This record gives sequence, C-alpha cells and structure tokens, in this order.
Amino acid sequence: MLMNTHEARLDALRKELKKRSLDGFVVPISDEHMSEYVGAYAQRLNWLTGFGGSAGSAAVLAEKAAIFVDGRYTIQVRDQVDRRLFEHQSSLVTSPAAWLAAGAPQGAKIGYDAWLHGKPWVDATNMALKAIGAQLVPVDGNPIDTVWADQPAPSPAPAQVHAAALAGQPSEAKRSQVAEWLSAKGLDAAVISALDSVAWLLNIRGTDVDRTPVALSYVLAHADGTAELFIAEEKVTPELRAHLGNAVTIRPREAFVPQLQALAGKKVAVDPERTVQAVFAALSGAGANVIELTDPTILPKAIKNPAEQAGQRASQARDGAAVAKFLHWLSIEAPKGGQDELSAAARLQAFREESAELRDLSFDTISAAGPNGAQCHYKVNEETNRKIDPASVYLVDSGGQYADGTTDITRTVWIGPGQPSAEHKDRFTRVLKGHIALGTALFPQGTVGAQLDTLARMHLWAAGLDYAHGTGHGVGSFLSVHEGPQRIGKPLGGQAGTSTELQAGMILSNEPGYYKEGEYGIRIENLVLVERREVPGQEGEYLGFENLTWVPIDRALVDTSLLTRDELKWWDDYHAAVEALLAPQLEGEALAWLKAACAPLPQH
Amino acid sequence: MLMNTHEARLDALRKELKKRSLDGFVVPISDEHMSEYVGAYAQRLNWLTGFGGSAGSAAVLAEKAAIFVDGRYTIQVRDQVDRRLFEHQSSLVTSPAAWLAAGAPQGAKIGYDAWLHGKPWVDATNMALKAIGAQLVPVDGNPIDTVWADQPAPSPAPAQVHAAALAGQPSEAKRSQVAEWLSAKGLDAAVISALDSVAWLLNIRGTDVDRTPVALSYVLAHADGTAELFIAEEKVTPELRAHLGNAVTIRPREAFVPQLQALAGKKVAVDPERTVQAVFAALSGAGANVIELTDPTILPKAIKNPAEQAGQRASQARDGAAVAKFLHWLSIEAPKGGQDELSAAARLQAFREESAELRDLSFDTISAAGPNGAQCHYKVNEETNRKIDPASVYLVDSGGQYADGTTDITRTVWIGPGQPSAEHKDRFTRVLKGHIALGTALFPQGTVGAQLDTLARMHLWAAGLDYAHGTGHGVGSFLSVHEGPQRIGKPLGGQAGTSTELQAGMILSNEPGYYKEGEYGIRIENLVLVERREVPGQEGEYLGFENLTWVPIDRALVDTSLLTRDELKWWDDYHAAVEALLAPQLEGEALAWLKAACAPLPQH
Repeated sequence: MLMNTHEARLDALRKELKKRSLDGFVVPISDEHMSEYVGAYAQRLNWLTGFGGSAGSAAVLAEKAAIFVDGRYTIQVRDQVDRRLFEHQSSLVTSPAAWLAAGAPQGAKIGYDAWLHGKPWVDATNMALKAIGAQLVPVDGNPIDTVWADQPAPSPAPAQVHAAALAGQPSEAKRSQVAEWLSAKGLDAAVISALDSVAWLLNIRGTDVDRTPVALSYVLAHADGTAELFIAEEKVTPELRAHLGNAVTIRPREAFVPQLQALAGKKVAVDPERTVQAVFAALSGAGANVIELTDPTILPKAIKNPAEQAGQRASQARDGAAVAKFLHWLSIEAPKGGQDELSAAARLQAFREESAELRDLSFDTISAAGPNGAQCHYKVNEETNRKIDPASVYLVDSGGQYADGTTDITRTVWIGPGQPSAEHKDRFTRVLKGHIALGTALFPQGTVGAQLDTLARMHLWAAGLDYAHGTGHGVGSFLSVHEGPQRIGKPLGGQAGTSTELQAGMILSNEPGYYKEGEYGIRIENLVLVERREVPGQEGEYLGFENLTWVPIDRALVDTSLLTRDELKWWDDYHAAVEALLAPQLEGEALAWLKAACAPLPQH
Repeated sequence: MLMNTHEARLDALRKELKKRSLDGFVVPISDEHMSEYVGAYAQRLNWLTGFGGSAGSAAVLAEKAAIFVDGRYTIQVRDQVDRRLFEHQSSLVTSPAAWLAAGAPQGAKIGYDAWLHGKPWVDATNMALKAIGAQLVPVDGNPIDTVWADQPAPSPAPAQVHAAALAGQPSEAKRSQVAEWLSAKGLDAAVISALDSVAWLLNIRGTDVDRTPVALSYVLAHADGTAELFIAEEKVTPELRAHLGNAVTIRPREAFVPQLQALAGKKVAVDPERTVQAVFAALSGAGANVIELTDPTILPKAIKNPAEQAGQRASQARDGAAVAKFLHWLSIEAPKGGQDELSAAARLQAFREESAELRDLSFDTISAAGPNGAQCHYKVNEETNRKIDPASVYLVDSGGQYADGTTDITRTVWIGPGQPSAEHKDRFTRVLKGHIALGTALFPQGTVGAQLDTLARMHLWAAGLDYAHGTGHGVGSFLSVHEGPQRIGKPLGGQAGTSTELQAGMILSNEPGYYKEGEYGIRIENLVLVERREVPGQEGEYLGFENLTWVPIDRALVDTSLLTRDELKWWDDYHAAVEALLAPQLEGEALAWLKAACAPLPQH
C-alpha cells in the first residue's frame, strides 16, 4: 500500500522535531521578507499539507496537527488537506497560539523559524503559551528544509535595473529622502526588508517571486544617503553594479546578519509589520537601539510620480486592448460550449503575451464560471476546472506586469445565448452603481478609505445585499498588485489601511461585487488614480479619481431602468473613451465588437 | 481705579497656591463625575477667567497663566477672557501639559484636583512634566474653593423617582444585568460614577445640573445585585427611599471614599473614561484590585426599550407642536424686523412651556441670526445678541427635557420678505439631500457611524463643500442630550464612538449642515431610532432608521430641481406625516400655516 505523501512528510517532520527536542512547530506561508507571495523554495505549508491557498498556517505537535485558514479557503482546504493528518481550523476562530496552548504539554518547547515570523506574532504567541508554561523557541535552520529532499533553491535569477525614466526619480533622490527622514529623527540607519520597498528604493526589479517582480535582497539605508544591498552574488550583473554606483555597497546575503550586528550602539529604524523577528533579535542581541517605525519608503512608494502615472496609463492602454480582444473572443467561443475556466485563462494570457512588453501576470488569473464565481478568491486548477456553460455568468479577474505599470481588472459577462435573469441584471446594476458612485466621488483632503467604502456598497445595502471583501487596494508601479498603505474597505473589516488618508498620486482598485453562493459571482473592477480636483466655489482641498482602466463593461447585464441620468451619462462617456483608446489597437471583427460594446445605452 | 475682577481672582488663587507650596494649578471644566455639563458650584474656570463656553481649561503659574480652548471657542475666548491675564491657547495645538512643561520651573510641583480629572489625563500630564523634573500633586481641597467667597453650594434639590412605566424596566432588573456582568467576569463590584449612568441604573432623576436631569450621587453596584447609593442626605425623600427598596443602601456622600477603601482585596470594575483619578487612588491605596472596564450601563442605556421608544415618540409629538407654533410665530413676527436672537429663544421656550410636561430645556437654545449661524456652537447672550434681520437666514437648534423623552431639533428658515439667493438654496438643498440619504439608509448589522457619515456629506462634497462637526450623536431618555457610545462622524474627527456598531434601539441625531463664515449657517436636524428592517430577498440582518422628529422643513430654502424623484417623495411623505401628527395640536392661523408648510412640493 502506497504511503500518503503528506503523511510521510508530516512523519519526517515529527522525527526531525524529536531529534531537536522540540514538542511542536509552526509553519506559516512566509519568507525572510514577510512577503504576501513567496518563492517556490518558501512554499513549506504547501509541501507539508498540500494546501494551495495563499494565506494560512499549520501547527504540528507530536500527536496531532492542524491547519488554520480563513473563510476564503474553507472549501479549498477541505478539498486539498487530509483531515486525518491535519484538523481543519478557522483562523478567525482559533489561532495557532490558542490551539497550541490548548493541546501542547505543560512546559512544551514549540519551535518557530524567526526568519518567517514578525515580532508581534512572536510576542502574542508567547503570551498565549505562557498560560501552560510553554514557550516559543527559535530554530537553528528550518526543520522542514532538513527533511524536504527536493526543496527548490531560491531563485538565482539576476536582479534587473528599473529604468529611471520609468521610475521617475533616481535611486539617489529616494535614498536622500530616506536619509533626511533618518536625520530628522536622529537615527543612524533603517532596515528595509520588504522586497517591494528594496525594489522601489534602489530602482531594481527581479523575477524571484511569481507575479511580483522583485529580487530577494535586503537593504540597510544610512543617514548619509548611502546604502548596503544584501543579495546573492549570482544575482549581481555588471549592469546592476553600474546602476547602483559607489554609494550603494553590494554585499553577499550572508553578510546581512553580521552587518546588523555591526550596528551596535546605533539607532536603527525597523518596521515591525514588515520585518521578521530574526532581524530584531540580531540587532538587539548586538546592542543596537531598535526604533520601531513604519518603513519610510511605504508612503512615497504609494504616491506615484508623473512618470509612474504616465507609465500606468500606457500599460493600461496596452492591457485593455488584450482584455478587449479576449472578451470579443469569449463572446464568440463561449456560447458554443467548448470552453472551460483553464482554456479561457490561457487564451487571455495569450492575448496579453501578444505584447512584447508583458513581463508576467500580476497574479494568478481568477477565471470563474457560474457558481465558482461566488468564491471571491477562487483560483482555478485542474481539479476545480469548470466548463463555461452557455447561458451563464462568467467572472474574470486578471492583470499584467509591464515595465511601466501593473494592471488589475475584473469583468463579469453574460455568456450567451439567451438573456440574464432579472436578478442577474438587478445585482449587476447595483454593483455598477456602486462602482460609479465611488469612481466619481469628490472628497476632501483628509478622507480615508473607510469613508468612501460606503459609496460602493450603498446601492446593494438598499436591497439588503453586500459583499464580504474590501472595495479597493493599492497597486504598485511594476511591483506588487497589492500595495499599502491605503485601502478602501469597512473599518472593522480586519484589513489595515482603511484609516489611511488618501493622497493625490495613490492608485487604488475600485471593485465592488456581489456573490450568490452556489450560483454566480459579479465584480466590476477598474484601477483609479487619486488626483487633486478644482471645483468652482470649493472650500478647502478636494480630491477625486482619474479612471485608469478602459475595457467595455457588459451591457447585457445592465438594467438601464435602475440608472440615473448621471449614471447613464457616465456609462456613455466611459465607453466613448474606451472606444477612442482601444479602437486603434483592434481590427476586423474585434473592432466591430468593440464599437457595438461601446455604443451609447438606450435611454429609458 | 476699580480692580479687574478676574485679575483679583487670579491674584487670590496665586497667593493660595503659594501658601500651599505649589508652583502651579490646572483648572478644568469638570465635576466629581466627569460631567459634560456641570453645576454652578463647579464652574471654576468661568469664575476664574470669565470664559462662558462649555469646554476648555486653564493653567496657572506664578508669573503667567493660559486658557486652552478648541476652534469652536476662539472668538468667544477673545471676547470674554482678558489676554493680559491669560494667554489664549488653542487646545488642539498646545495642551496644558505641554504649556506647563515649557513654562514651569525645573522640579515644579503642579497642583491638580484629583476629583476633577480622569486617570488618562493625569498619566499623560505627568509624562509631559517628567521632561522638566516636574510633577502633578493632588491638592487637599480645591484651592479655588478656598478663595471663591460666594461659591454656590452643590444643589440641595431632592432626587426624583423615574417611573418604571417610563423607564420600561425596574431598577432591580437593571442591577441584575450588572450583577450578571460582574459575575461573568469574576468581579465583586463596579463603581458607577457618571451621573446619567447612576440615574439610569436606579431609575432616578434630579435637577442638580442645568439641562441634564440628574442627581449628584455615586453608586457601588455589587455582584449580588445590591447597590450602595452615595448621596447628600438632604436630597433623599421618603418616596425615593421607598422606590429604592432594601437592596439599595443609601449612604451619605461622605461615605463614598470609606466604602471604596472597604473594598480592599476585592476586584472592582472602574471606567477610566468616566471616573476621576481620586476614585482610582482611593481603591488602589486601600489595596483593592482595580479592573479598568467600560461602565456596564453604557450599552443598555443607549439601547432604548419599547417603553422608552414610545416615550420618545410621545415627547416628540408634544415638542414638535411647540416648535411648529414657534416657526409660525417667527414667520409672522420676524419679517417685521423687531425680533432678536434672545427674544426668539424666549418665545420658543414659552411655546415649550405651554406644555405642563416640560421639565427643562435639553440644552441652551442656539438661536443664531445671519452670520452668527456660521458658528456651529454659537450660544447667544446679552453681548452677542443679534437682531434677526428681514431677508436673512435664521438657525435655531433646541430641545426639551420631558419625563418621557429628550428632544433635539434644528431648523433653518428664511426670514422674509424676499427670496433666498440661489446659493442659499443650493447649500440648503445639499444639506437636505444628505439628511435624507442618511435618514433613509439601509445598512447591515455591524455598520458603524463612520461608515454612514459619508451619506450625509456626499452631496456637499460633490460641490467642494463640507461641515466641520459630527453628523449624529446619541440622545438619552430624559437624560443627557449627548449620550454615548454611538456616534455618526468622520473616523479621524477626534470624537469617540464613530467605530461603535449601531444597534436597534439606539437614538441618534441626523444633523448635517453648512456654514459660510461671516454670512450664514444651515443645519437640518431630526432624531432617528435605529430599527431592524426586513427587505424582500435580504441576505443577513439589516438596520434602518425610524424618524422621530416631526416639524416642517422650510420649503422656501429648497431648490426642487436638485432633488431626485425619491427625494421629492421623501419630502412629501415626511410633511404629510408632520401634518397628521401636529394638526390636531394646532388651531387657527398656526394650523393654516402648518397646512401650507406641509403641502406637497411642486414637481419639476
């Protein structure tokens, strides 16, 4: 009888823990930079449990083990993780800390990898374990790495230079800003640990993490404007070296800890939300004075300069044409009944790849037919792949990474033949009205995302409906498709950033939705850019959104009788602009489809 | 030459401080219960400085002194407080603590009255003073009381029984709830220090504080459902004694501290936001185990039961008739040019007093003519009193205390002859649209005030306009007109409560406005009651507002072309209901005025 793969792996891990005199171990999805998406070498939770989602963790004791995921992944964990090996726990109800405190023996030693967890997590978990006299113990080398025979190595790919013309500002100027920030606070240095922060600060990119164009590396930024870059030597090209110049010292990744230790007696800024515990331990252990502060690159990275804004517009024009070609293709092929979620996602990718500018997708395409669309974080794979039925609702959320910009767009379309139901149209039109209300809002300087979120929901609320996700996230410039610090969402929604002031230059998604379990999902997503606005007679500073994404929205799903005159005008103006932007990039039947899709709506 | 009164008082205070070896003293507007409104005996800041506003504080050193007020009172403090005696400081820019830390001598001893300040204030101020080696020292008896020769005594008025039929729940049941809360937390007792909490818990009222019907007293609530009431013996009537029964021990106010000290070794809940430092000191000093928790009466007090809801509706019908009579009177008299803010406020009070049910106003009437309306917390007095000009905008914000409910209503009217300007109508109509959008909102259970605030502002924002105050505050049942914990306002507006979940049974004001400095102010305020709502096809629990206030809104100020069909319908439905409720209470010309004011708006 064949041994269950994950059973063998769990068994091997337990033997290794025993060898190290540990009573348990915690396995997150994380890397040394606390990345949201991690490289293949860091997919330890997936290796151990089979879970393929992007958020979750496991806790392993000698006699039992559990996996912890939130509501998005309840179904997926049921499909992918053997319940006989791992109890399925809701992370909203039971934290690994609480589970360990309830199940570990008195005085237990629970191992953790200090290079994968933040300080707040370590503090909170230790607090919970105290109740049973247990404690967290940092491991010397991750025990999974010891037993994971064919673990991939971290990517050896070269780091790339991000052209100053696209970045809009040389690294030197950015480092000067950080240096000024340090000097104003009387500090000596800042640890820049988040991969997109390193990339932004030094104007470099990479291919080490799927979907996010970053290079595995750390930076120490000093108050004199110099910096040290810690990066595997194989990733350093002569071009990179020339780009970084004399003020940036390139050091091997292994030199990071010794250089942290060399900061003894210095005042060092470290971001507790973005830096693993091991960095704090190295600094404190060496006698450095650690000051907990938000990474100083976060806000300037979020506020796009004119070059980044122009790049975003250019990438959107290119990306919009690819999505329009796909929607045309879909309108012809899907009603025939021969397509499925995977084939459609592949076709969409192929249209994007027609542009030589495409560097990667910005995330795994959400290609969701019928009821799969009701799982708002659905990710298609061979097992879940579903036929796209004629006469059904199809949702596609996708994006591209281009050197000049990162895109993210969702369209929901009716797959013919036939007509959507009155309910489909009612729900779609309420989502559309929310999308328009948010996209056209004018709001005073000082407004935060929690205040604007209501505009996207109010027309659903009026019918006793809502959606269980945020309304808008920040987006990077050829960087992470989820970028902070700003967010549009409910204030008690559990996601950081909804009380961050929106500022001109920030990019956000505008993506209200509606999900009917077991039936269909609807989401309409464009990216928008916060901009200053001038209104006659205004009192104080006002902001609004420039729309960035230009692709037809499916008119078949609109109930025009629910739209106000202003909303009808918005639709017509939007589609006139879509046609003007995309028509020159399309031809033949696709062009004819575009023109029909962009014609004014009939007045009611 | 006559000595300036406040100069003499400041001088006397300084001599007293010197006698006590104190280098300074802090004077808040507060009482032993941290009340928002305080009795005459506690108006120490007013006595010392002449300042008549309801929020502010002063700090006195040997050589200089300062008064600290927020933006609402900038003009008032300029008019009332002699700058040669007290520097005028903005409390938003400079705290008394910061001012003292900058100006007090090294190692200074700064006196404070621990019966007037909360623990958070004491901790924060001590922290600031540490920088100069100074410290706060609690005084033994307030030094102002020593030098204030004709200080009024605390009110000797008897405490009154609040009928169970109006309270909707006997005190015994309320005390049982508190007892269950204590038991569930393993605690022995709770200090109930806020005057409205005491009043709610024991179903008693009083006349010790202007505008808020409370009796000066403390409660210690025990885990067995018994309580001790600490109250001046002169205030205790046989009726009160009978009402409280055997489970409530009545003790003299002087017994409060000894009884706190008798809690040595007990676990005692104390609300740091609502309890003065002296209570913490007495408990801790005696060896009690102080647990900081929100006063357990706050939430049940905010959620009105059916009897309280019915009482509120009855009081609104009564109060609405008085306000309607006033608006009719105003429409006849004010255009003649002989009225001013004081005469109008007096007339409004007289109309309210026509009802034998009126116990007090619920706050000092804001009667604001023309430019005075632009000060959103304007309070008329003999010096600021302004003529109500014909052809101008007049704003009146007022309320009554009735045994069955507390009211609060604002109406803004055009004083004829002539017509308001297009700008007046545009601004008024935008405020009205916000009032309607908030009042008619449907929202899911779990929504907080910060989310709904946007609905009230969005139509002003669209024109680059806003208002610098919150949108809605809680209201008590024959208690404080400002009652927590809920609030509708901007999340960063600096006022607590905007992240409190709204719950069915809570009463809130709905009062958007617009203020043009030096010209006019607009505000439309009704009270609303949070209620459960059923909508066909709804998913989850939904809430909405029942409207509580029924008084005509001035049609002369409406630009109907800015209203949607739904808003026009709201207006007509609202006024039909106003007419139905108030017509039976009016007669003659007032009734004719009401009917004209409630006629449907012309369709556009």
